[in-house]
Amino acid sequence: MITVVLIGAGNVAVHMAKAMYAANEVHLIQRYARSLRNQEFFNSEIPFTKNLSELMQADLYLIAINDDEISSFSKKLEVSGLVAHTSGSMALNELQCKSGKGVCYPVQTFSKNELLEYINIPFCLEAENKRDLELLKKFANSISKNVYEINSNQREKLHLAAVFANNFSNHMFKIANDLSEENNFSFDILKPLLLETVKKLNHLSPIQAQTGPARRNDQKVIAKHLKQLYQTEKEIYQVITKSIIKTYS
Amino acid sequence: MITVVLIGAGNVAVHMAKAMYAANEVHLIQRYARSLRNQEFFNSEIPFTKNLSELMQADLYLIAINDDEISSFSKKLEVSGLVAHTSGSMALNELQCKSGKGVCYPVQTFSKNELLEYINIPFCLEAENKRDLELLKKFANSISKNVYEINSNQREKLHLAAVFANNFSNHMFKIANDLSEENNFSFDILKPLLLETVKKLNHLSPIQAQTGPARRNDQKVIAKHLKQLYQTEKEIYQVITKSIIKTYS
Repeated sequence: MITVVLIGAGNVAVHMAKAMYAANEVHLIQRYARSLRNQEFFNSEIPFTKNLSELMQADLYLIAINDDEISSFSKKLEVSGLVAHTSGSMALNELQCKSGKGVCYPVQTFSKNELLEYINIPFCLEAENKRDLELLKKFANSISKNVYEINSNQREKLHLAAVFANNFSNHMFKIANDLSEENNFSFDILKPLLLETVKKLNHLSPIQAQTGPARRNDQKVIAKHLKQLYQTEKEIYQVITKSIIKTYS
Repeated sequence: MITVVLIGAGNVAVHMAKAMYAANEVHLIQRYARSLRNQEFFNSEIPFTKNLSELMQADLYLIAINDDEISSFSKKLEVSGLVAHTSGSMALNELQCKSGKGVCYPVQTFSKNELLEYINIPFCLEAENKRDLELLKKFANSISKNVYEINSNQREKLHLAAVFANNFSNHMFKIANDLSEENNFSFDILKPLLLETVKKLNHLSPIQAQTGPARRNDQKVIAKHLKQLYQTEKEIYQVITKSIIKTYS
């Protein structure tokens, strides 16, 4: 059994707590956060503290706080267990504590009210030494079937890739949604298409799966589309179309 | 029973033929195409012709050919049944035939080898008169449970929205895939994230679902990401980030 103290109260912390409740080999013994924010999303039976001096002894201190605060927070952390952050964009050596350092990055988009299948969430792990890595593996394997070893440099690129794959594609959906509202048709019409766009990638690479006017370099349709767009959306259309045409030329 | 002649041999035609085989109320009585291209993807029992003068008498002539060719092709079509094209980007009045005109646009991305659940594909219909619309509705309802009435102006915007939602998001996945290959981690790590990005939209709007550094206007992370990108990818990152920041400011 791995004992864990969870640090933070944001979306990632909420879901990491839920994932831990469900895991057999993990015991979440305490939560720490600066404030009572989001308290209602956590199981009230878990002991909670706002006082760093009250931290309990645990195998793992899992930090799920803002990226910006990880470094300075870890400096104040005087514990003997392994300290691991959950950030995709921070290197291992951003941790300034004296005890063992690790990273346990769950590659998923977390909204508080979302139900997630934790068993499918990829966990990307890194640690300074083999013993700490084994502890993180045991922890992550008890939650998910998708556990990867990823170093800080790879994780930096992975996080960047996730911004394109998740954040930016969601913004494409937002522009599509705007068009549906402005023209009185239901955004639901597009949902099966969105699902298929992703499902296709189970057996095609994105480069094989590409379709559409830019893929065919269909300048007539492209010109027609550009005439209907203004400012930012037009700029986005132009720059992505240019990139797709370049990819296939 | 609606009798149909299918015109064309591309991806859309292949899938429309399959959808029709499976539908109870539809009988695909003949196929026409200029060449024998993709012949192996069609049921060989369906009579086939390359000769327009051999077209059989049918209730519906479904045109699934290149957008550019719809207008000139329809001019040559001397039939008495309803003529409908399947294009998202062409207006109803692009059809130049003398018989009834309609549009039956399946909103999906079609690859020849893909297995699709036709029952979920939204069909967007338009016709010049009520009787023709009823025929198209009967046709589409026998294939799918998602049938919508959409006029040419709306369909033009819908097609544009589909370019953002499907083509452009797929290009975001392509850039993420490039990053995974360049940095030796598996693109599989990102797939559960992609699926969740789309599944979220069942109960959140894209504007609610947005996360990431641009959403938080986190200039530190944005600057870090930009340093790792070059040329086109950098431009794409900048223009979409600008648009997300503008959305939430």
